[in-house]
Amino acid sequence: MFTLLHCDNICGARRGRIVTLHGTIETPAFMPVGTVGTVKGVELSQLESTGAEIILGNTYHLSLRPGEDVIRELGGLHKFTGWRKPILTDSGGFQIFSLARIMRINESGAIFRSHIDGSKFELSPERSIKIQETFGSDIAMVLDHVVSLPNERSVIEEAMLRSVRWAKRCKEVSDHSYQKLFAIVQGGLDPALRRSCVEMLAELDFAGYAVGGLSVGETPEEMYETLDFTTPFMPIEKPRYLMGVGTPIDILNGILRGIDLFDCVMPTRNGRNALAFTDSGAVRLRNAKHKINDQPLDENCSCPACKRSRGYLRHLFIAGEMLGPILLAIHNLTYYQSLMSRSRAAIEQNKFKDFYKEYIEKFKAGH
Amino acid sequence: MFTLLHCDNICGARRGRIVTLHGTIETPAFMPVGTVGTVKGVELSQLESTGAEIILGNTYHLSLRPGEDVIRELGGLHKFTGWRKPILTDSGGFQIFSLARIMRINESGAIFRSHIDGSKFELSPERSIKIQETFGSDIAMVLDHVVSLPNERSVIEEAMLRSVRWAKRCKEVSDHSYQKLFAIVQGGLDPALRRSCVEMLAELDFAGYAVGGLSVGETPEEMYETLDFTTPFMPIEKPRYLMGVGTPIDILNGILRGIDLFDCVMPTRNGRNALAFTDSGAVRLRNAKHKINDQPLDENCSCPACKRSRGYLRHLFIAGEMLGPILLAIHNLTYYQSLMSRSRAAIEQNKFKDFYKEYIEKFKAGH
Repeated sequence: MFTLLHCDNICGARRGRIVTLHGTIETPAFMPVGTVGTVKGVELSQLESTGAEIILGNTYHLSLRPGEDVIRELGGLHKFTGWRKPILTDSGGFQIFSLARIMRINESGAIFRSHIDGSKFELSPERSIKIQETFGSDIAMVLDHVVSLPNERSVIEEAMLRSVRWAKRCKEVSDHSYQKLFAIVQGGLDPALRRSCVEMLAELDFAGYAVGGLSVGETPEEMYETLDFTTPFMPIEKPRYLMGVGTPIDILNGILRGIDLFDCVMPTRNGRNALAFTDSGAVRLRNAKHKINDQPLDENCSCPACKRSRGYLRHLFIAGEMLGPILLAIHNLTYYQSLMSRSRAAIEQNKFKDFYKEYIEKFKAGH
Repeated sequence: MFTLLHCDNICGARRGRIVTLHGTIETPAFMPVGTVGTVKGVELSQLESTGAEIILGNTYHLSLRPGEDVIRELGGLHKFTGWRKPILTDSGGFQIFSLARIMRINESGAIFRSHIDGSKFELSPERSIKIQETFGSDIAMVLDHVVSLPNERSVIEEAMLRSVRWAKRCKEVSDHSYQKLFAIVQGGLDPALRRSCVEMLAELDFAGYAVGGLSVGETPEEMYETLDFTTPFMPIEKPRYLMGVGTPIDILNGILRGIDLFDCVMPTRNGRNALAFTDSGAVRLRNAKHKINDQPLDENCSCPACKRSRGYLRHLFIAGEMLGPILLAIHNLTYYQSLMSRSRAAIEQNKFKDFYKEYIEKFKAGH
């Protein structure tokens, strides 16, 4: 499933390839988030044009709306959404602990109320796998117990140990050969807990390993440090996925430390809020200085937003037109995919560290 | 500019062609409405895929936001929006009388307050033409005096006569050979007033003639009757445009009576409200009966919405996802363009009347 093609000989960055039933993913790769079966505001042909090779679907959201039964009746997530390329589904763990109102949580699983209408749901490791099987995603994630940071060491340790036990239960009921199961490493910001978690999960031999429990309140530096003492213990021959991350700089820092997969709502969410990513930093298009600016966001970008002037894009946001969020989501997704593509090229030439340094200097100078 | 290619020998329907600097329009044609420089929710490549050959821009809305100066600075409406095909701009007349708060109106023009922020604007026939020249549209419309219906005959007559005087003033200041100027026939539901208006305008020799002052409160039957006693007096060799119309059935009734051009917000507006047009009538996608419906809206339609199930489309609306309005706008625009294309083919074979009858029977049976 995963082939490690090349390791940069200067830093930890890796160039790899994941092969699934629905297609191939060149890594490092970025996965746009299609929360409820659509990447917000972006139609499939536009999404493909950004260069996306895999998208993420949220098991929690999809279970609430339209519900597992509807997706089953309508032929699974690929047929339902029309997206023919690979899909990764998360387990619902992160959303239960961040969005839902939990009623009870114990070793067997969680009972919670929907954040939408308060209706009651149950999720166990076995149920999460069953739902993801119904969805028919190419990569499924184990159900994990996520805790916010900072937190007491004992709480973090307990959640980590439970996550390992749940991962084992997930693996035991996962029996679809086409659907690969990734484990999730927990353990907060604690080196010993992270290492111990990686080692226990590695013994269970999953198809891939994710670093979870980050982007939950820690600083970027704490996140990078956690990767520093976690990735070296992760199986070399398996894909590594940093969940829910992040800014362009976060992603480059992940790649530098050997991460292969990323997902984040930032390109689409920031796009909806009139914020565009460029190599010179973020551009806030509502700013009056763009009013009669006839330049594109990025003259080297081939996306439809960059065929227009900044003045036009600003006008769309000021006038409250849907096309503003649409075009900026497409631009930001194109930008993220270009960042991954440029990273892959740099790794192949053992120049990722230089690329990283130049990028960060230029990005910061633009602010 | 306009070539009348063929007249159906059974009914009044005509097959024609309009040639402009930015491209050719096969008529009868439908113009999607791009109120403030974007057809709501539809990106240009998607808009082209629907088959649209010309779009409409609203002078009133564009003058308010982003303003004439911004569009001038950013190179005119084609460069501003990125749309390279023909554009028709209206004069602002209809919106002044329907949206704005009028402060004063007399022979010279209108002073009104913006419906957005209350700021004060002036519009005269000469100003309207000047603004449309700045926009650089391929077809400009004269400023007309619109009155609501029903109304007193004297009021309708006075507005009609003023509209003729204003049309003359517009023509006197319109001097861009590439930009064609269309006059607007007023006169309410009164046969004598309509005929008199057409005859006065015909003497002034405009590039095209629109029927205005309809879709303002009259019944469909009254509208069709008005066309019955108006179009026979309109110059045969000039394109005829029925402004702001309408439903698929209204449009077919217009074609039957010799109309060549239509525009309406209905495909996009109804799409945003989860209503899709099909040959079997309108489909309301929020209806629970579509929940696990795996059929497309229209199996003969090639639009991206029809590559999905009705169940998926319903889900997008229930979940409040932007892709719902986007896909349905694209579907409805594709449907309208297909209706025009089928009408053109029927006219070429002198079978428009049959096509019209069959269409209406099927459409009504679906309700």
